[in-house]
Amino acid sequence: MRPILLRLTNLTSFLLLTFLTPTVLAQNVILIIGDGMDDHQITMARNYVHGAKGQLALDTLPIRGAVQVVTLDHEDPTKVIYVADSANSATAIATGQVTSRGRISTSADTDRDFQPVTVDLKRAGYAVGIVTTASVTDATPAVFMANVAQRFCENPDMMVQAKIGGNWYADCEQDLIANGGKGSISEQIANSSIDLVLGGGSKHFLPNAEGSDITVLQKAQASGYLFVDSLSALEQAIENSENRLLGLFSPSTMPVRWQATGGVAADEPEPSLLNHVHEYLGDVTLPAPVQCEANPSYGNTPPLAAMTESAIRQLQKRSGKGFFLMIESASIDKQSHARRPCGQIGELQQLDETLKVALDFAAAQPDTLILVTADHGQAAQIIPNNSLFNGYGIPVYTPGRLQRLITPEGAIMAMNYATNDFQAEEHTGVNIPIFANDQGRDLVPAFMMQSDIYGLIKRYLLPESQ
Amino acid sequence: MRPILLRLTNLTSFLLLTFLTPTVLAQNVILIIGDGMDDHQITMARNYVHGAKGQLALDTLPIRGAVQVVTLDHEDPTKVIYVADSANSATAIATGQVTSRGRISTSADTDRDFQPVTVDLKRAGYAVGIVTTASVTDATPAVFMANVAQRFCENPDMMVQAKIGGNWYADCEQDLIANGGKGSISEQIANSSIDLVLGGGSKHFLPNAEGSDITVLQKAQASGYLFVDSLSALEQAIENSENRLLGLFSPSTMPVRWQATGGVAADEPEPSLLNHVHEYLGDVTLPAPVQCEANPSYGNTPPLAAMTESAIRQLQKRSGKGFFLMIESASIDKQSHARRPCGQIGELQQLDETLKVALDFAAAQPDTLILVTADHGQAAQIIPNNSLFNGYGIPVYTPGRLQRLITPEGAIMAMNYATNDFQAEEHTGVNIPIFANDQGRDLVPAFMMQSDIYGLIKRYLLPESQ
Repeated sequence: MRPILLRLTNLTSFLLLTFLTPTVLAQNVILIIGDGMDDHQITMARNYVHGAKGQLALDTLPIRGAVQVVTLDHEDPTKVIYVADSANSATAIATGQVTSRGRISTSADTDRDFQPVTVDLKRAGYAVGIVTTASVTDATPAVFMANVAQRFCENPDMMVQAKIGGNWYADCEQDLIANGGKGSISEQIANSSIDLVLGGGSKHFLPNAEGSDITVLQKAQASGYLFVDSLSALEQAIENSENRLLGLFSPSTMPVRWQATGGVAADEPEPSLLNHVHEYLGDVTLPAPVQCEANPSYGNTPPLAAMTESAIRQLQKRSGKGFFLMIESASIDKQSHARRPCGQIGELQQLDETLKVALDFAAAQPDTLILVTADHGQAAQIIPNNSLFNGYGIPVYTPGRLQRLITPEGAIMAMNYATNDFQAEEHTGVNIPIFANDQGRDLVPAFMMQSDIYGLIKRYLLPESQ
Repeated sequence: MRPILLRLTNLTSFLLLTFLTPTVLAQNVILIIGDGMDDHQITMARNYVHGAKGQLALDTLPIRGAVQVVTLDHEDPTKVIYVADSANSATAIATGQVTSRGRISTSADTDRDFQPVTVDLKRAGYAVGIVTTASVTDATPAVFMANVAQRFCENPDMMVQAKIGGNWYADCEQDLIANGGKGSISEQIANSSIDLVLGGGSKHFLPNAEGSDITVLQKAQASGYLFVDSLSALEQAIENSENRLLGLFSPSTMPVRWQATGGVAADEPEPSLLNHVHEYLGDVTLPAPVQCEANPSYGNTPPLAAMTESAIRQLQKRSGKGFFLMIESASIDKQSHARRPCGQIGELQQLDETLKVALDFAAAQPDTLILVTADHGQAAQIIPNNSLFNGYGIPVYTPGRLQRLITPEGAIMAMNYATNDFQAEEHTGVNIPIFANDQGRDLVPAFMMQSDIYGLIKRYLLPESQ
C-alpha cells in the first residue's frame, strides 16, 4: 500500500482520501512481545545478523524506554520477588495487575480473575488477534484469553494433579467448569470471542472438552472458529472467509528457524587434569566455535512474519473500527533456557521481520501504535572470547556453559549460560526494553512499570475509558 | 538557585533576568558515566534502594536510549570483538573513534592519537572538569586528558615493562617524552589545560616526572594547579580561588560507600557429598543472606555528589561561556569485578545523587544538557532466589558465585557472578543505556553507536563545528 500513500501529497489527494474512508478512521495496536528478550538477547542478534556496527529494525524505532517487572511472592503476596516468569509478567501487560509466578490473569492472593484488555476491546468493537510461535495455550498468549490459577492447566486433561516433572503438579481443580470455573486454557480459547488465534499447541485441543464427548477443537469449530493447520490453508481461508480463525501449526511449540552446527547446545569448558589440581595450572579446552544453520526440523513451519501478515488482513476484515494484535516470538526464551544461542538469534530475527511487516502496515495506516517489549530477562550473556585477564597466562573460563559463534563478519561471539546447573537456565530480573513507533511519542514514557503497558493500550484505543 | 527561578514567573521578572544576564548565555554539558552500569546493575540498585516498585532519579529522566559498544580486535583491527574494556569504550565517547581494548585515545592500528572533545571545547573557551571515584589516571577519566598506547601507563614509573600481573606488562615506551611522546597519564594531566581534576590516584603523582627531579605533583603545581587532598580543602579552595584545581583524595581508587555484612563477597554454593555423586541427589547450602552496611574504610571520603557540587561552582568561575564536566562513578564496575553487589549498589546510588545535583543545577541553568551513560556491561545478574525449577525437588544452584541480599522491603534479591573462575569477573557485551534531560529531546536518538556520543556533545556546545 505504500506507493498509494506516497502519491497522496497534495490537498486534492487528501480530500479524496477523506471522502473515500469511513468517517471514523480505524485505530490499531500491534503489540509484539519477545519472550525473554532483554538487551543481552537483542545485542546477540544484532551482532550476529547485522554485525557489531549494524542495526536491527528494532533499533530504527524512535521511542525506547525501560520497563520494571514486578512479581509478587506466592507464599506471601504482600511481598515481592525479583525474578518473574512469563505468566505473571504477561498478566501485568494484559491486565494491568501484578501477580505471582505461574498465574494466568488471576490474583496472587485469593485467585480472583483479572480482566484482560481484550475483553474491553472486543466490547468496544475492535477485532482482537493473538499470534505466537509457542502453543497458543502457553503463558504469554493465554493471559490475553483465559483466567486460570496455574499456567500448566493447558487442556482438560491437565486440570487435576497433572504431573509436570519431579514432584511438580499442575492443579487447577477450582477452575474446572464442574466447580464453577472456566475450564482449562484450551477450552477457554474455544469458548472465546477472540477473532484470530494462530500458533502451535494442537495437542491441547485434542482431549475431550470437560464433561463432553467432543474434543476441544470440535468445540471451537462448533462455536464458529474456522480451523487451519498449514500456512497455505491459512492464506486460503483469509482469501475466502471472514470467519474467526484458529490456526494450529504444530503439536506444541513451533520449531525454531536456526540451530548451531550439528544442533549442539552450549557446553562446559573442559579443564585439563592439572587445572583440576590447581586453578592456576594446566589449561582448558573450550567448546569449538560453531555457526548458525537452518534447523532441519523447521520444515514448512509458517514464519512469524507470514502469520502476522495474514492476521492483519483478517482482523481488518473483522472490524472497521480497528484491531488489537498481540504477536509473541516465544522461543527467544525457550532457546535461552536450552542454552541455544542460534535458536534465540533466529527467533529474534523472526520478531524483527514481523516488526517490519507491522511498520509497513503502519506506513499505510498511520493510526497504528506499534509497541515492542519483552516479558522478563533471560540467562544468556555475551562474555569475552579472550578473557580480560588472559595476560595473566592462566586458564580463565566460565564455570557455566559456553557457546562460541563465528559471526558472518568473521569474529567470534562467546555466549555464557551460567544461572544454574539444571537442564534449563533461569530467567533473570533485569528491567526490560520497550520500543514504540512515532504514535507512541507522547504516550510511552522513558521508564514505566510493566503493568502500565495495559494502560497505554487502553489510552490509545479507548481514550474515553481513561 | 531554585527559589529565585521559581519567583521569575511574570514578564517583569523575565525582562529583569534578560538584562541582568550576559548576552551570550552559558551552555553546559554534564556527562555522567556509570562504569559497567548496564540495565542489570541499574535494576539491582533500584530494587535495593527504592524497592521493586520504586524509581531512581535516573528513571525520572525523560529521554532513554540504547548504545551499541564497538571494540576493535587488537590482533587484527579490521575486525571487531564483542566485549569492551573501559579504555576503548570511553575513548569512543571522548573522541568519537573506535579502538581496541586497553587504549587511551589512541588508534588500534598505528597508535595514532585521537583528539578528545575536551581539546576543542577548551579552544572554544569552555571550562572543562573531570571528576571520578577512580584514580584520575584510570581509563575513563584518562581518555579525556591523555593519549597513550596502554591504560596501565599511569605514571612515569609504569612506562616500560611495568609488571601488572602474571606475564602481563604495561609498555608504552613509544610514549616516553624522551621518545617524542607525551609521557605517562599523570604527567599528561599535570601538563594539561583541564580546569579541574578530582578523584583518587595520588600515588601516580608521587614519582618524579620523566627526566626530572621534581614529582609529577610538583610539576602540576608548577604549571598552575592548586592541589587539595580533602573535601574541606576543596571547599575552601573553591571559596577563595579561581585557580585550576587538582584534588586527589586517596592513593588509588576511592573507597566505596557500602559493603555486605562483614565485608563478604559473593561465594560458591556448597553442595552436599551426595550431590557430588549425582546432580539430582543430596542438597546444597547457599551463602547466607546478608544486608548492605557502611564500608568501614569509607571514612571521610568525599561523596561524588559533593565533588560534583564543588566542580560545578569552580567551572562556572572559570568561564562565562559554560563548561563540560565529565563525572564517573567508577566502582560500579570495580565492585562487580570483585563480586560485591553492595559496593555496586552504593556506587550507583552515588551516581544517582550526583544526577540530582546536576538536575538541580539544570533547573537554574536551563541550557545544560545532562547525559548519563555507561561504558560497557558487567557480570552481575539478578537470578531467582527460588529457582523456576524448584518444583522438581532437586538441588538447583548456580555454578558461579552467589550473594543473596535482604532488601529493605524485606525480600531476598539473589545476585549471580559467573562469567569466569578467576579472581575478577569479566565485562559483558550487552548494549548499554543512555539517558538525557529535556535538552536532549531532539539530540539523543533511541539507538546509537557509542562513538556518536562525542558528536552529541559537540553538536550541543559547538554547533558551528558540525
